[in-house]
This record gives sequence, C-alpha cells and structure tokens, in this order.
Amino acid sequence: MSLLIKGGKVVNADQSIFADVYCEHGLIKAVGENLSVPDDTEVIDAKGKLVMPGGIDPHTHMQLPFMGTVASEDFYSGTAAGLAGGTTMIIDFVIPNPQQPLMEAFNTWRDWASRSVADYSFHVAVTWWDDSVYQDMGLLVNEHGVNSFKHFMAYKNAIMAEDETLVNSFNRCLELGAMPTVHAENGELVYHLQQKLLEAGMTGPEAHPLSRPTEVEGEAANRAIRIAQSLGVPLYLVHVSCKEAVDEIARARHEGQRVYGECLAGHLELDDSVYQSTDWATAAAHVMSPPFRPKGHQEVLWKALQGGTLQTTATDHCCFCAEQKAAGKDDFSKIPNGTAGVEDRMMVLWDSGVNQGRLSEQEFVAVTSTNSAQIFNIYPQKGSIAAGSDADIVIWDPQKKHTLSAATHNQKIDFNIFEGRTVTGAPHITISQGKVVFKDGQLFVEEGAGRYIKRPAFPSIFDAVEKFNKANTPVPVQR
Amino acid sequence: MSLLIKGGKVVNADQSIFADVYCEHGLIKAVGENLSVPDDTEVIDAKGKLVMPGGIDPHTHMQLPFMGTVASEDFYSGTAAGLAGGTTMIIDFVIPNPQQPLMEAFNTWRDWASRSVADYSFHVAVTWWDDSVYQDMGLLVNEHGVNSFKHFMAYKNAIMAEDETLVNSFNRCLELGAMPTVHAENGELVYHLQQKLLEAGMTGPEAHPLSRPTEVEGEAANRAIRIAQSLGVPLYLVHVSCKEAVDEIARARHEGQRVYGECLAGHLELDDSVYQSTDWATAAAHVMSPPFRPKGHQEVLWKALQGGTLQTTATDHCCFCAEQKAAGKDDFSKIPNGTAGVEDRMMVLWDSGVNQGRLSEQEFVAVTSTNSAQIFNIYPQKGSIAAGSDADIVIWDPQKKHTLSAATHNQKIDFNIFEGRTVTGAPHITISQGKVVFKDGQLFVEEGAGRYIKRPAFPSIFDAVEKFNKANTPVPVQR
Amino acid sequence: MSLLIKGGKVVNADQSIFADVYCEHGLIKAVGENLSVPDDTEVIDAKGKLVMPGGIDPHTHMQLPFMGTVASEDFYSGTAAGLAGGTTMIIDFVIPNPQQPLMEAFNTWRDWASRSVADYSFHVAVTWWDDSVYQDMGLLVNEHGVNSFKHFMAYKNAIMAEDETLVNSFNRCLELGAMPTVHAENGELVYHLQQKLLEAGMTGPEAHPLSRPTEVEGEAANRAIRIAQSLGVPLYLVHVSCKEAVDEIARARHEGQRVYGECLAGHLELDDSVYQSTDWATAAAHVMSPPFRPKGHQEVLWKALQGGTLQTTATDHCCFCAEQKAAGKDDFSKIPNGTAGVEDRMMVLWDSGVNQGRLSEQEFVAVTSTNSAQIFNIYPQKGSIAAGSDADIVIWDPQKKHTLSAATHNQKIDFNIFEGRTVTGAPHITISQGKVVFKDGQLFVEEGAGRYIKRPAFPSIFDAVEKFNKANTPVPVQR
Amino acid sequence: MSLLIKGGKVVNADQSIFADVYCEHGLIKAVGENLSVPDDTEVIDAKGKLVMPGGIDPHTHMQLPFMGTVASEDFYSGTAAGLAGGTTMIIDFVIPNPQQPLMEAFNTWRDWASRSVADYSFHVAVTWWDDSVYQDMGLLVNEHGVNSFKHFMAYKNAIMAEDETLVNSFNRCLELGAMPTVHAENGELVYHLQQKLLEAGMTGPEAHPLSRPTEVEGEAANRAIRIAQSLGVPLYLVHVSCKEAVDEIARARHEGQRVYGECLAGHLELDDSVYQSTDWATAAAHVMSPPFRPKGHQEVLWKALQGGTLQTTATDHCCFCAEQKAAGKDDFSKIPNGTAGVEDRMMVLWDSGVNQGRLSEQEFVAVTSTNSAQIFNIYPQKGSIAAGSDADIVIWDPQKKHTLSAATHNQKIDFNIFEGRTVTGAPHITISQGKVVFKDGQLFVEEGAGRYIKRPAFPSIFDAVEKFNKANTPVPVQR
Repeated sequence: MSLLIKGGKVVNADQSIFADVYCEHGLIKAVGENLSVPDDTEVIDAKGKLVMPGGIDPHTHMQLPFMGTVASEDFYSGTAAGLAGGTTMIIDFVIPNPQQPLMEAFNTWRDWASRSVADYSFHVAVTWWDDSVYQDMGLLVNEHGVNSFKHFMAYKNAIMAEDETLVNSFNRCLELGAMPTVHAENGELVYHLQQKLLEAGMTGPEAHPLSRPTEVEGEAANRAIRIAQSLGVPLYLVHVSCKEAVDEIARARHEGQRVYGECLAGHLELDDSVYQSTDWATAAAHVMSPPFRPKGHQEVLWKALQGGTLQTTATDHCCFCAEQKAAGKDDFSKIPNGTAGVEDRMMVLWDSGVNQGRLSEQEFVAVTSTNSAQIFNIYPQKGSIAAGSDADIVIWDPQKKHTLSAATHNQKIDFNIFEGRTVTGAPHITISQGKVVFKDGQLFVEEGAGRYIKRPAFPSIFDAVEKFNKANTPVPVQR
Repeated sequence: MSLLIKGGKVVNADQSIFADVYCEHGLIKAVGENLSVPDDTEVIDAKGKLVMPGGIDPHTHMQLPFMGTVASEDFYSGTAAGLAGGTTMIIDFVIPNPQQPLMEAFNTWRDWASRSVADYSFHVAVTWWDDSVYQDMGLLVNEHGVNSFKHFMAYKNAIMAEDETLVNSFNRCLELGAMPTVHAENGELVYHLQQKLLEAGMTGPEAHPLSRPTEVEGEAANRAIRIAQSLGVPLYLVHVSCKEAVDEIARARHEGQRVYGECLAGHLELDDSVYQSTDWATAAAHVMSPPFRPKGHQEVLWKALQGGTLQTTATDHCCFCAEQKAAGKDDFSKIPNGTAGVEDRMMVLWDSGVNQGRLSEQEFVAVTSTNSAQIFNIYPQKGSIAAGSDADIVIWDPQKKHTLSAATHNQKIDFNIFEGRTVTGAPHITISQGKVVFKDGQLFVEEGAGRYIKRPAFPSIFDAVEKFNKANTPVPVQR
Repeated sequence: MSLLIKGGKVVNADQSIFADVYCEHGLIKAVGENLSVPDDTEVIDAKGKLVMPGGIDPHTHMQLPFMGTVASEDFYSGTAAGLAGGTTMIIDFVIPNPQQPLMEAFNTWRDWASRSVADYSFHVAVTWWDDSVYQDMGLLVNEHGVNSFKHFMAYKNAIMAEDETLVNSFNRCLELGAMPTVHAENGELVYHLQQKLLEAGMTGPEAHPLSRPTEVEGEAANRAIRIAQSLGVPLYLVHVSCKEAVDEIARARHEGQRVYGECLAGHLELDDSVYQSTDWATAAAHVMSPPFRPKGHQEVLWKALQGGTLQTTATDHCCFCAEQKAAGKDDFSKIPNGTAGVEDRMMVLWDSGVNQGRLSEQEFVAVTSTNSAQIFNIYPQKGSIAAGSDADIVIWDPQKKHTLSAATHNQKIDFNIFEGRTVTGAPHITISQGKVVFKDGQLFVEEGAGRYIKRPAFPSIFDAVEKFNKANTPVPVQR
Repeated sequence: MSLLIKGGKVVNADQSIFADVYCEHGLIKAVGENLSVPDDTEVIDAKGKLVMPGGIDPHTHMQLPFMGTVASEDFYSGTAAGLAGGTTMIIDFVIPNPQQPLMEAFNTWRDWASRSVADYSFHVAVTWWDDSVYQDMGLLVNEHGVNSFKHFMAYKNAIMAEDETLVNSFNRCLELGAMPTVHAENGELVYHLQQKLLEAGMTGPEAHPLSRPTEVEGEAANRAIRIAQSLGVPLYLVHVSCKEAVDEIARARHEGQRVYGECLAGHLELDDSVYQSTDWATAAAHVMSPPFRPKGHQEVLWKALQGGTLQTTATDHCCFCAEQKAAGKDDFSKIPNGTAGVEDRMMVLWDSGVNQGRLSEQEFVAVTSTNSAQIFNIYPQKGSIAAGSDADIVIWDPQKKHTLSAATHNQKIDFNIFEGRTVTGAPHITISQGKVVFKDGQLFVEEGAGRYIKRPAFPSIFDAVEKFNKANTPVPVQR
C-alpha cells in the first residue's frame, strides 16, 4: 500500500516547505511537488496542516515493576496512546535488579514489548557492577542494537548506582560508543530527608517534593557531568526538572563538554502546588521523581529548550492508578512514583511552545523528534521527513482544539495531570510505518506491529570525542 | 554541463552518508547511490574525500574605503581567493557614510561587486538615522533582498551608531523581518583609551589592543543584547572575540533570547602577543578590531562553537598592505584596521577544529556554512548538499597538507596572519554553480560569474518572535 | 551632659558583647563593664535591648525639586522621621541642573539642609560636563568634604549623563579619591518604551514598570561597571533593584573589581503587583524608579545582602503626596517618581532580615550603618559603637511590636508603602550626638541641631586601587 | 612585663589609625595616643611600621603521620617558624584513623602539641561514623573547645568520608553549633585516574596533577555545598585551589548560603609547571593535594580573595623531606603529599597582594588573621588589635626585603616552594602573648609556651542559621 500526503507544509527541524510526501512499504519515497505515484495510492489531504516527523518519546516505562507493583500501562496500550498523540516511537528502559544479569533483563523486556503497536527501542540500566555487567554491555551494543545506558543516582537501597559504578560504566560506554544517561538525584540525601520528614510527622504527599529539593538534583547533575568530564565521555541527563540542573548543563556545554538534557512535558507545565491539594489521591497522583517544582522552574526549562541547553522532550510515562498510589497512604515514600503523558506531550508542547512563541515550528520538531533521533543515532531513519526515512509521520492540525482528560485519553491510567486543559493544535492523522494508525480520534492499530529498532553505536559526536581525548593524552616527562 | 561526484562521503550539518552527488544547471539534482545520469556527465572521483556544502563567509569587506584608504582586495580577487579555500559565497557589507542615503551606498556596492566570481550578498550598515533611513531599510528588504542590517558601536566620530540609532533601527528590523547585527565595542571608551595611551607615549601597535580591552567588547555586547531584549527583536553579533562577549551571549541564550554570534578564524587562533613583535610592520599587520586577545580567549571561542553559543565563523576579510598600514607609523590609532583570511578560514577551522576533536565533521559544516545560511535565510539554497540546492560544493581532502603563506595564497595582500602554518585537510576541488572553479591548486574563474543572492525577510525564527511578543503584550488595568 | 547606657548587648558589625556605653559631649567615651562615670550622668536601662550604631541612610532626597514639583519632606521633618526610625544620619544629594555650576547647587542644598535635626552629608550629582565641572569637583572634594559623585543614567532630556560624561567624571573621581555612584537605568530605552506604551494607550501607573523593565537596569549596571573597569576606578550602584543588576555586580566582584551596591527597603519587600491596584492613587503612590519588581527579585536582593554582593541599604526617600502624584493622571510618565521610608527602613530590615534568619544581628548593623560609613569614609566616626565614635546610637527593642502606617508615621507624606504592617523589633530610644532624641514614641529634636559631616577623600580601598593601576601600567615595545 | 609599641600605624580589618599599643600580662591593654604606662615598660619604636594582628594559619599539619611516614615539622619547630613569619597562632588537625575513637586521637594530638611555642587549636577530622563518633563530637565541642570538624572527600581506602558520613556529621555539627569543613576532591575519581595513569606508564610526579584535575575538586566542592544546603548548615572549604571550586562557592554565597573558603599561599603563587621539572626531587617536592593548578587559576584565587568569595589564607603546612618523598620514586601516588609555608605565607601575601594592589592593608589583615578568628569564633581574642585582645602582634616593615629560601628559613624541611624569591615587606618584630618572640631575624621562643585555645561553639552566624531553618520548617497539609 502506498500513501500520498498532499498539500501540507512539511516541517523538518532544519526547514519548512510546502510539498507532498509519498510513502511506500513503510518508507518515505519522495518529498516534492507534482510527484508521480501509482494509481491506487491513498491520498490524504493535508491542506492547512503540517506534516511532521512522528514524535519520539525517549523516556517511557511501560509495565514497569516498581515499588512493589507494576505500571498499569503495558506496551500494547502505551504505544497506542502514543500514536493517538502523534508519537510514533518510544525508547523504554530495561532495568535489571542489582545482581541480575543485564542480558536476562533485556530478554524479559524484549518479550514484554513484542505486543507494541508502534516502533520502540531500549535504554538499559546499569544498577550494579561486576565483570559480567562489563561483558553484557558489550553484547548489548555489538549484537543487540543498544547504544545508551541508564544510571539511577537515586533510590538508595534499591537500584542506585554508586560513584564507583558510574565511573566504571561511563568508561565502558566510551569504549563501546554508547551514550551514558543519568537520573540525577542524590539518593543519599533523598533517603536522609525522607527519614527526617517522616520523623517530623510529615507523612503526606506534600513531603515528597521536600524530600527531593532542587539542590538534590543540582548536586547529582553536577556530579555526573564532572565524572563524564574527567573521563572524556559524553552524557545525557534524563528528566531535567529545575534551574539547578539546567545551570549545570549550560555551564558544561559552555565549556565545550558534550552534555545533553531532556525535559518532561509535565515539568514544563506543572508546579509543586499540586502537592498541596487537600485531596490525598490528587496529590499522590502527582508523585513522581523528580517532583514538580516550585513556580519559576518551568520557565527556566522552556528557556533552556529555546536556547539549546536542553535538546529533547519526553514524559517518563509510568502509570500507577489510585489504588496503587494508595500503598503510600501513611508514608509518602511508599507512593509508587510515576505519572502519564505519552499521549499528551506533543499537544502540550505545541500549545505552550509554538502558540506562545517560545518555539518555532522547526524547533518543535527538533525537540519532540529529531534531536532524540540524532542523539540516539537513529537519524534520519527516524526524526525526518525525507526520502528514505521511515514513514512515521504526524499530520498536525494547528487549529484543532482538544481537551486533555482521563475520561477520554487512551492512556491506561485513571488520572491525567493536564486534566481539563484545552489545547489548540493536535494530531489530525498519525502514520506509522506508512499506515494510518490514528484518524478522526480513532486508533487503527495492530498488536505486535511495532518493531524493535536497533540503534547503532558511535554516533558522529563520538568521532570528535575520541579525537579530542587522543589530542589531550598526557606524555611522561623525560628525566 | 553536468557533474557527478562519485564515491565521497557527503557531509551535511545533520548527517553524513556515503553517496554520489549529481549536479546540473548550477543545481544539485540528486544525492544517492547508483544515480542514472546523462552520458556526457563529467565524473569526479571523490573516494576518500568529503563532499560538503561550500563555505559561506558572512563577514567580508572587499575594496572597502576605510580610514583614508581602500582595502586592497577587490570583489574579483576576493571571491576567487575564497573559492581557493572552499568558500563559495560571501556576505559583504554596504557601509554608507553618515548622512549618505542607504540606497545610494547600496547601489555603489552592487556595482563594485558585479566583478565577483562567486555568489555574494550584502548586509547594509545603519550609521545614522532619519526618516529616509527608515524608508530605505524598507526598500532594501522588500525589493532588494537585504535581510540584515549592521550597526557599528565603535568608531566614534565616524560610523558609530548611538543608542538612539540602535533603538530605532532594531525596531525597524523587527517590523521588516530583518536581522539586526552589531560590531560590539564601546566607541566612547575606545576613543578615551586611545587618547590616554597616546598621551602616555604609547604610540605603537602594541597600544591597539590596550585601547580596546575585552571589557569594552563585553559592554557593547551586553548593551546590544539588552536593547534587543527590551524591544523583542533577535540579534546577531559579528566577530565575537572574547570571553566577556561570549558570556553575554550565553547568558542571553540561556534566558531564551534569540541571540546569535559569529567568530573569526583569526580570533580562534591568534593571541595578542602578535602586537609585541619588535617588527613594526608585523605588529601593524595584525591591527584589526576587535584585536587579537590575550591567551585563553581563543579556547573560550572554540568552546562556544562546540556548545552552540556561537553559530558561525567568518573572517572580517579586509586587506591592507604594508604601505597602507604605515599610515599609522606614529599613531597606532591611524593604522587601517583589517586582516585577511577568506581563503584560509576553512582550512584553519578543519585543522584546529576537526583534527583536534573540537568539532565533528557535521559541526564543521554547520559552523562554516549551514548556520550562516539558516540565520540569513538562504537555506537550503545554500549550506546544504541536497537535491534542489545550489551546486556550491567543496570536495575536501582530509589528508591533504597545505602551508598557508602570503607567498602562495590568492589573497591580494602581502601578509598572512597564519604564515607558515601547515594544515592537514584542504579543498581538493571547489565547485561553484555546478562548475569546477578550483582544482589541483588552480583557479578556473570567470569575472562577473558570481550572482547577487537575494535573501528573503522573515526567517522562521521571526514567526516565534512575533508570537512571543504578541503573547506578552501588556493590557491596561481597568479602573 | 553625659549618658550611660547600661546592661544592653552592644552589637557592632564585627562582634556582639554585653557592655555598658558611656557618652559625653556628643561622643562615645567608653564601652565596657563597670565604667566609672560622673555622678550626674543620665542612666538608660538597656537590659534586654541591643545597643547599635544609629542607622545611616545613604540615599535620601529631602525637598528635592523634581518633575515640576518639590518633594514634600524637608530636611527638618525628614531627619526627624529618620531618628524616629533609628536612623541618625542621612546622605542626601545635590543635583545641579545641566549647565548649573556644581558649587552653586551645592550651596543651595547646604542652605536647605541647615534645618536638619540630625547629621547629614551630600553626594553631588554630575549631570553635565565641561571644565568648570572638573574644577568644581576638585573644590568639593578638597575643601567641602564631598567624596562621592552621582550619575543618572536615566532621565533623558533632563539630568541623564551620557557615556562621555560618565567617562570624564569617573576619571576625575579617580584622581580625587572620590567614589563615583550611578543610578543605573538606560535612559534611552526608558524614553523609547514610555513613548511606545503611551502610543499603545497604556497611560496608567501599571505602564510605569513596563517602561523600565529589569533588563534596562541590568544594561546600565553593566555599562557603568565596564566603564569603571576600563578606567580602573571603584564604583557604587545606588538602589539596585533586580536580579539582572545584582548579577552584574556579583560578576564584577567575582573578578576582583571594586564594585559596591545598595538596595532599598522598598525593593526588598514589595513587588510590582502594587501597580495593578485598581485605585489609581495607590498605584501612583508606588511610582518610583527603578520600579518595584516582579516577584522573585526581592529574594535575590536579600540573598545579595547575605552573600556580600550588596553592602548597604537605603530608602531613596523622596516624598510626593497624592495631589502631586496626580500630575500624571493621564500620562504615567508625568507621575513624580518617589516613595518614602527613611523612618521605616530599619524596622523592615530587622523584621524581614533578622527575624527570618536572613541576617545576623551583626550583619544587620553592617548593612544599615557600618558599611555605608566605611564605603563613604566616615568610619569609625559613624557606624561604630566604640570609644571615640560619635554618640549616634539606637537602642533596639527586639520584642517591640510596631505598626507602620501613614496615620502614625513622622514622615511628611500621606502614604506609607508598608501600610498596616506590624513588625517585631523597633527603636526603643534613639540618641543623636549624645542626646536622647526619640523615646517612647516621642521625638525630642531641635531644628538645626544636625551637622554637615565632611567625608574625607581616599578611603583605604583607593590605596589598593592606585597600586593596582600602577602595577598594570603598560610599557611600549622597544623597536 | 609590659610593652609599649610606639608610633606605628595600627591596621585592623576595619580601619587603620596611627596609635600606640600598650600590652600587659599577655593582653593588649590600650590603643591610643599619649597612653600613660608604667615606667619599666619596654618601648618598641614602630615608626614607619605597621602594627597588625599576628597571623592565624587555620590549616597546618605538624608531625602528621601520613602515607607511611611522619611530617618532619613538629609543633615546636613549626610554631616557631610561624612566629618568624608573623603568624602567632595555628589551627592544626586531629585526624583519627577510621574506627579510632575521636577522643583518643584528640588526646594524642594534644599531647604532641604541648611543645608548641605559640598558641594553637585543633579542628578534628570525622573519618568514619557510628554512634561513638556522634557522642565524641559532643564531648569535643562542649568540653574541649573544638568548634569545627574536618571531612576528607578524597583518599579512598584511607580517611575518605562517604556521603553518608558527610550527611550525618554535618547534621551533628548543626546541632552542636560547630562548623563543618571539607577537603573537596572526589576520591573515587582520583583513585580511578591514578590507576589509569599508572597503567598508561605515567608514574612520575607530573601524573599527580593529572590524577586530580580541577573538575575533581569542583565536583566535591559542589557536593559538599549542596549537602550543606539541603541540611541548612554552614560550611567551610579548606584549600580551595581552582576556578571550578571558587565558582561553586561564589554561586552558593550569591544565593545566600553560608559558605566560606580558604586558599593557600602556594596555590596563589605557583602553577602546575612545577611538575614538569626534569629533576624528580623538585617535582616531587611540590606534590600536595590539591596540586598546583594550570596558569590562570592563581589569578582566580586572588580575585576571589578581593571579592569576598574566599575569606581566609592558610598553608596546609605539612613537611616531607626529599628522602620521604622518595617513597614514591616509581609510583607518584605513593609520594607523601605536602609542602611547607607557615613561615612564608604572610610575606608572600603582602608582596603579591598589597604591593600589587590586589589587597588593601586592611584586607591583608582580614585574610591573614581576622577572618579566621571570626569564622572560628575566637574573635576578638585573636585577630584584632584592641584593648582586651591577646597581645599577638606582628610589627610589619613594608620596606624590608627578605629572600625566601630553604637555606635560611626556620621550617624543618629541606625545600622551599618559594625558593629564591625576594619579597618586599616582612615582619620586623613578632609578639606572642605580649612577649617579643622574633626580632632582627632571631627567634626568642620557649618550648611549651604556646597555649591550647578553646574555641566556643555557636559563632554568631549560627543564630541566623537557626532562625532561618525554623522560619523555613514545613507544615503538613490538613486533609
């Protein structure tokens, strides 16, 4: 089957042009005017619409086992919800338990993900260290298409990576041409503050943000960046949520270090007043880490996206319903951490970003899709409307109004952190692998249609990094 | 005539691929493998070479009348020298005298430039203000393809623009969708310091950098940025030379302001020790403004290029020979300001940038070509190897060694600030408008072959800027 | 007459001790325990109280002719109000009109001030430049005890100093050992924004802060600092009101430059929501320049005081009553600029500063008194509780509650920007020149009792500055 | 015995005056003119000299057992060398081994120090954690006059404190009113880099600075500051050596955090070129941690002293002679870390500080003496020339030339890092406890004359800190 998208404005990260887009066999075959196409080609009228690369959400956790329960959203429903929001690919996380072989965990997650309706890939977490981890990292990169590893600096007594693990794993990433990534919060401080708050009788969700203040993220961000600097390895920080962390990334980049940052739709929009809700369930529904931040930090994140300090947007989509959240009824530190958003992200980004003049249309494409594709080295297969790229496309209606709500969303969770917000600008049609999978508010998906996307090692920046390290290798003094 | 470039690695700002490039009638027609081309197509073997967009030098001054003399390099020789260095387009400056009508000056420069052998365009300087200037700016943008205006904050009693002019002109730029640009040095301080140094008997070229210390540039950079901020207009700073100015740009960008910066090949490489030469002519040959800076600033510029604080590289190519420089024999403030480089820039950038691991190949393309094309809104006509783009191409030999020298360069000046430096990486072949114009060290140029390139107003960032300004328009309090 | 203050805690900027203080002939004679004093000595019980140096307000404008009217508070009433608030000395401003001889203006102000009930001194403004100004600056410093000069970077078409004047005057200050000070707002931008707002129909007081946004202050602060840097002269910025200016001072100090900053009680406490009042008079009563700032800037100022970026606190006390403010009924730019505070400052600083743990008691003394005395070189005559110092003392009751209000204050103005606020901590007794002048809420003042305080040139920092400039003097290259 | 110092200029941190100083029974009894003194008073002519508080070196390690050897300088010789350089008090360190009871170590050091010839005190290191450490910290503060605790963030597998220890100990400090201090280097990274360098064949002293690059110090400085911030406790960083750490302190102070920093005479003057010496012994003699830094960092430290980011100067005096250093002949990581300087510090500070115009005389006193006394809460007993203060005085000859050299110094070490440098400005006479102990280059000291100085807890800043923490205590949401 082939598709012709006619009359739209094709928006890529580097330019916008009025052109038609022809897709065949899951690929974009041509972009231009007056394309000659087979007679049986399905034609989509995109007049007045924008034709953009489908979104990439580089940070989701479908059906994650976490804090004694399992995320309610699975790979089938989660990837479908993404499509409904214009997101055609996710990068999820394999998270081995400490002492669990990486390959074992990887295989488990691959199995779970086989039900996906859209393309996906995996970062793999390094939660512990020994020689087998070193070996498995090599296997994953060289044979399984993994080119990024995640490190949790929080969650003491669980999956937290100590400095020794960070140092070893970052080094290994450099050897392999893979990108180290971090969840930056100082787990020691979080643990200490949690105990202190509980002892002081602060047991409700309002204590959650107090147990993880912004300086705790700033500290860890700086530590990870300095470790990366001293080892000469690039670094990517997930869910950067506050000025303190943004400032660290900006400083590092200003000094020429290869550091990248991601922010979440939720952190861009919400502030920590949500934890003051007198309804426990509402406050608890917002418990995630890092937490929503005091007013002011949101604008810092927007400006960091505008100025290039942050490159990508994601959701950390990790769904827990009210009954799951209730596990922390008497102790905020036991509330499963997570909120949804894979379906909402692009609409929120458009409405607050493009409509408010914070982002140009091209920048919107960059931060929702292209930059993730480039950093994680699947560009231009993904993140581009160009001949040869995968036909993962969102046809965007900049005039369409849509109200975000748990009552209507496709996400498998009973809460929406953007509840009741009406945005202007939403997907008209979503195309995955050259097929219309979302149209007129309806999903047309097929279980298992999603493919695992291998991501090659050594994105181009590693060439520069290696030359740089070599040019700066010390030599002994002759005595 | 048609050309096929075979077997090279095509490097664009966003990706590198191994592909052939087919050019016809001055345009790139196809990029890919196994292209079908006419039989009489000239085939160029690019195996082991990089096929990159020809360089754009967004800052040159050919045959500029300045400080009582005229720059020795004319548009014919200057554009030819550019081609020999892989630069296929320049953006020069129309500089009206105070009270001179802008259109009059524009026509003069257009006339001079008609001898160019490669494509060119013009920024126009606003050196004074009245309603006719306001009107002429409109004419230039709407009818003559000018989309950027230059403001000198230095050169008191000559072409310096006062704050009032800056404010008026920046505002006009915003209306017209044109980019304001500034030479950032506080002319009042420069004047004062010049007098003070001369009074203290400091008459030699070593006084030149002392009369324009880095804080003088930092001040003006900040002032221009703050004016742009309060008016809601983007800004481009030419020849950023020091940490003070870089820091201002970084701060502004960090706060979401749309500010761009350019740096010169010379400032990236040389420091102010050149003014300590005991040979007067050598010291004087390096007199340009801003001057070469104390050691340390060079690395700051490199890091700013790496981190995205600066986007473009240029030369401020403005040639004065020894006998011209001699005008300031007894008074450094009378030495004509200017140095060459249009031919050397890309080789220096490659050698110190790519070879040292400071820039990836893609970043090299971005900072020597693509970013200028994007900011000045001629992308993808220029700055891209893609079907539909102008066939301005440099085939780069990363192994070629070349020694920079006044004895061998094509620049019409008796001095080379990189004299004797042997770089690794140089143009193998340069192609302009689909024709080979430089090969085996030989130029094959034709006087007048260069075209004036119109640059349309309202690059995409202006959409965001206008939405932003609108979203932030104040409303009266109802009383 | 002699006074013994018994049983209090003597708080100086460098230490706190429990000790008695004995005063005689207007001076402090002894500080210690078990002092032997004459029998007829009046004894004041200070148990549970703090004995601190009387406040110095380094920024007031009594009976200033400004914007077509004259400030309602005169030197008699104004200095009395200060005493009621624990402030025993003011430094007011002589402001010559452009073209008016400095000495003439100085004599006028000296005459006006002769009615003062407490000690006072004068900064002199440099609003224009010619050789007579140069000469008068010398006279003022060498014969009249002036050691600081003020420069308005705002108020275009009135008292604004152009860069040329700044450069000349700063230079002259360096020669004379006097401190240049600036009101940092870019007058050109303010003028432009005023016109633009008025044209857009924004005529009410809510337009006032929009015509002087924080970047306008940041610009001027940076410009003044850079000018001072390039000339090698110290600098003092009055009424620093926003993050942008604080950041500039912090940067400069961080780089070793001798820069000092003052902030106002009002700017520490109020934000720009006051201009949204639906009562015109209330909004207009808050019109001053720089205006009150968006939420967030207040905390920045507090932190700058804590961290040492700012050294002094003042009020810019400049009273205009409702009928005077009404002059700008239809045009916000015609509302006389000014608010009161000389009486309120120390109470507000204590309540928000010491009670909230932002300042220690010693730091409170430093920022309300000692630092001003040191910077303006009248320490330890003023700003110190020590043998030999003037007996200007406030006996502070940290438990006393006091409600700030126009209904009860001693200030000659019909409005109080802190209206209705109840502070904890207030003057119990104020002593000026060894006499009790305020007690139990009553003033005991005498017209003309205040003395003009001469301030000697060359405070100690100038020794370092001169050595530094000398050590960094350039030398010609031998050719 | 009593002493009268006549005719000198008395320089304190807050002012300079010409006055006489009378001392009796080890105390200063009076400062003023025409003092009446007993007939048998010894009179010292101080005309043309400066009379300043004796220096305090807050960071020395006399006879420290370290890295398999013991520092060659003992408390007797070390305190004597200090006196020869104008330093009248040291604060040394008690360093328990991990698992060693703090009190046991404290008693050992007290015993060693009893031979001192000048006053001294102790910081106590917390190198491990359990409840006994918690208890001993209380004992030390409440009964033994310790008000500061040291934490080594470097020296993995030896005395390094993990984050958990830092958090616990900082908390305990807050309870006790004691100042936590840190040696800020990331020990994990140092260890890793050492192994990597050794594996690469970099075994000489030139590898030492490479194993501890500036980012390693920057990381630890930031971590300690962030931990202190989240706990609400003040912090003091010892031997701040580089821009990265200075920037962290400046940022924290700029944000109102109570952070203090110390720098060493050596770090102010020397750069890392010393490690390139082709003489192994010379290079090794400079091995200390943090190492001497690349050119540029020195000026950053000076500016931080000028601007108030750093408050104190010290030496980290820790002497190892050539034969001791030789232990690391084949492995730089085994070279005992340490250099001398207790005798040289004030002369170096004067010559490079005051003579170069970087510091005023008053600032010199502040950074060599008064600030340490204030921060460590022994002011005005120490650090002040005032009635009631200890008679620890240096009479400084600003014209005296002195050449620093191992051949002539009193320090018990065979090397001087300032070898051959001739300074202008040196002690004329040093007075300890009211007695002349150094004069005309001769020491007149008595073993055991030095006293252990108790330092009380809760310096005044802790009041503000406690109020601040209380004012910011969270409250539960009522549900």
